[in-house]
Amino acid sequence: MCETYRGARLITHNPYAYFARTAQFFAQKNAIPVRSGIHPTAFVDPSAKVSSTASIGPHCTIDADAVIGQYCVVESGCYVGRGAELGAHTHFFPNVTFYADCRIGERGIIHSGAVIGADGFGFANDAGAWIKIPQTGRVVIGNDVEIGANTSIDRGALADTVIEDGVKLDNLIQIGHNVSVGAHTAMAGCVGIAGSAKIGAHCTLGGGAIVLGHLQLVDHVHVSAASVVTRSLLQAGTYSGVFPIDNNDSWQKNAATLRQLHSLRDRIKQLESGLPQRG
Amino acid sequence: MCETYRGARLITHNPYAYFARTAQFFAQKNAIPVRSGIHPTAFVDPSAKVSSTASIGPHCTIDADAVIGQYCVVESGCYVGRGAELGAHTHFFPNVTFYADCRIGERGIIHSGAVIGADGFGFANDAGAWIKIPQTGRVVIGNDVEIGANTSIDRGALADTVIEDGVKLDNLIQIGHNVSVGAHTAMAGCVGIAGSAKIGAHCTLGGGAIVLGHLQLVDHVHVSAASVVTRSLLQAGTYSGVFPIDNNDSWQKNAATLRQLHSLRDRIKQLESGLPQRG
Amino acid sequence: MCETYRGARLITHNPYAYFARTAQFFAQKNAIPVRSGIHPTAFVDPSAKVSSTASIGPHCTIDADAVIGQYCVVESGCYVGRGAELGAHTHFFPNVTFYADCRIGERGIIHSGAVIGADGFGFANDAGAWIKIPQTGRVVIGNDVEIGANTSIDRGALADTVIEDGVKLDNLIQIGHNVSVGAHTAMAGCVGIAGSAKIGAHCTLGGGAIVLGHLQLVDHVHVSAASVVTRSLLQAGTYSGVFPIDNNDSWQKNAATLRQLHSLRDRIKQLESGLPQRG
Repeated sequence: MCETYRGARLITHNPYAYFARTAQFFAQKNAIPVRSGIHPTAFVDPSAKVSSTASIGPHCTIDADAVIGQYCVVESGCYVGRGAELGAHTHFFPNVTFYADCRIGERGIIHSGAVIGADGFGFANDAGAWIKIPQTGRVVIGNDVEIGANTSIDRGALADTVIEDGVKLDNLIQIGHNVSVGAHTAMAGCVGIAGSAKIGAHCTLGGGAIVLGHLQLVDHVHVSAASVVTRSLLQAGTYSGVFPIDNNDSWQKNAATLRQLHSLRDRIKQLESGLPQRG
Repeated sequence: MCETYRGARLITHNPYAYFARTAQFFAQKNAIPVRSGIHPTAFVDPSAKVSSTASIGPHCTIDADAVIGQYCVVESGCYVGRGAELGAHTHFFPNVTFYADCRIGERGIIHSGAVIGADGFGFANDAGAWIKIPQTGRVVIGNDVEIGANTSIDRGALADTVIEDGVKLDNLIQIGHNVSVGAHTAMAGCVGIAGSAKIGAHCTLGGGAIVLGHLQLVDHVHVSAASVVTRSLLQAGTYSGVFPIDNNDSWQKNAATLRQLHSLRDRIKQLESGLPQRG
Repeated sequence: MCETYRGARLITHNPYAYFARTAQFFAQKNAIPVRSGIHPTAFVDPSAKVSSTASIGPHCTIDADAVIGQYCVVESGCYVGRGAELGAHTHFFPNVTFYADCRIGERGIIHSGAVIGADGFGFANDAGAWIKIPQTGRVVIGNDVEIGANTSIDRGALADTVIEDGVKLDNLIQIGHNVSVGAHTAMAGCVGIAGSAKIGAHCTLGGGAIVLGHLQLVDHVHVSAASVVTRSLLQAGTYSGVFPIDNNDSWQKNAATLRQLHSLRDRIKQLESGLPQRG
């Protein structure tokens, strides 16, 4: 473990990860132990299977046939739908909603206000009115996934919405139906992924980025904050698309000119073609 | 119903809507029947009127004078405020918050985490500090409206915020106070509509689109995802405004040049004026 | 109080603030009085200190060592974490989540679905996997702060996230860990502030604006709606950066040309240099 670097002994090649693990060690040491058992104010359907090592907080509802794994902590006010499954050591902070038939693996963390498994946004237009398409898929989440506050992940229309192992989602993110997110991808707050997009593994999406529906991002794609992905990104790399901020007066002038950009290009062409002819 | 098209018998002119209706038929057939009645853990104020055919889930709070219509389903952890009204066959998924005096029509669907009727964002500035303007209007929602997870619709300041029949709102949408949304308009996830905007009927707004306050969009306006509506759109049609995504290096060069766009235009003008003079 | 202006007696120099105060007066007059006490369905840990003048609604959970000040109203379904503190006259609307050790001052208002104190988004990358960094700071909120529906404010990593007196946050806003927001700053809906940004006092951020991490905005900076702040703004003023919306066809032409903007600049340079040489 200990190597030397320029004569000094190296504790680690990755000090940030080392710090993270050390901080985890002390945080766990100082953590207040969670009492296992079902709080008397919780309602647990008799057909649900709750591990005896799990903790179900006040005012929770655990619906029929739900499965709560070993050492799970489900805090106050959470709802776990019919037939949903929580892997061992998963932690729901207060007021999480987890719809019927959805699954999350081991060591998952879901923060308050997150909604997993609401209906995807699927409608057929019939003479101007929208006819709802039942959303009969699930949300299937791997191991070691963390989901931020007020983030929502929709269930699939027919197939499932899939979040692979090690994915980290920040707050207020929207994941549409039938999206798949590859392992160890991380998304910052306020990202929106439209339906059926396929996001690769080890990707990062900056805060407020938007990915349109049915697009593909291959592994190791990095999208800058607030950029809008309007086409598939089939090569690893960093992609950006943000209007540069400026003082308001300059922006107004440049933005107004932007509307004439195509015609400016034509005028440059004209100028260029004019020059040789006049030679 | 059955016509012929090039010799074949047509089942439908709109196969997608036909699929939606067929899928609804099978979904209803397979649905687990909801038990009517008030769960023993729910708190229903004695002055509330709850239809005997309605279902009130665990840990719900139904406040004074609220009215819950026939065959309504209010799932676990929902809050229905004082004097609020839910039309027949309306379904609140778990953990919906519906403030005092708000109304929703028949066959409404509200997904988890949605907040209907919170105070609009109204303050007067007095010597640098913000003085709250009480928000005394309501949210009034028509029939056949679906509202996504963690979406919020603010109550009006004096008049009401109005959502007309057949509107479909996806997740994590913000609707400001005194907005009106016309019938059968649909908005994808993460849209933000600022206060007092008037959105027409049969409009669509792509994910992440923003509409500034007090603007008007006429019927049949379609706004592309992530576009920012900074002026009223008074003609039906499709509108866009998104910085194109590019690899980061190219974006950086182009974005930097964008700040000089107005002066580039002037230089083109200069070049153009130079040419004839030299003829 | 009463002065004269062009012979007329002035009631106020600031009619909008005067209206706000008058409306507050009538709203309070018409308000239904809140009953103090703890609802029988609420769960309050025996070690929590709840003022006898406070009101704790149905299905609330008040965790160990929490402090609820005088005349606080905590509505149905709220969660107040271990050791959290609410100043006098603070009002939580239904279904607020307030994590352990967070604090809010006097006369605070938090709307439904807001989540205060969830873990910041902090991970170290170790050979492709993300290692969680425990978030051990708090959220510390001053007096007279209002926080909108479904807004989330993350707790700090080591130090605290700080929201100063008089700040007003609209709905669906994301405030990252270790952010500080100066007094009397207001943010409209859907704003995202990334971690460790320092926002000055008396700033305004329009709806959907994004501020990247670790940036500084000095006092009296105003950011237009949907603008992305990619560098520190060290001078008071108004800043903008939004792609102008256009009909879709024009936008497509201009956006396509935008990708060539840098080379267009080069072509203009070439033209300019060409002219004198030919003289």
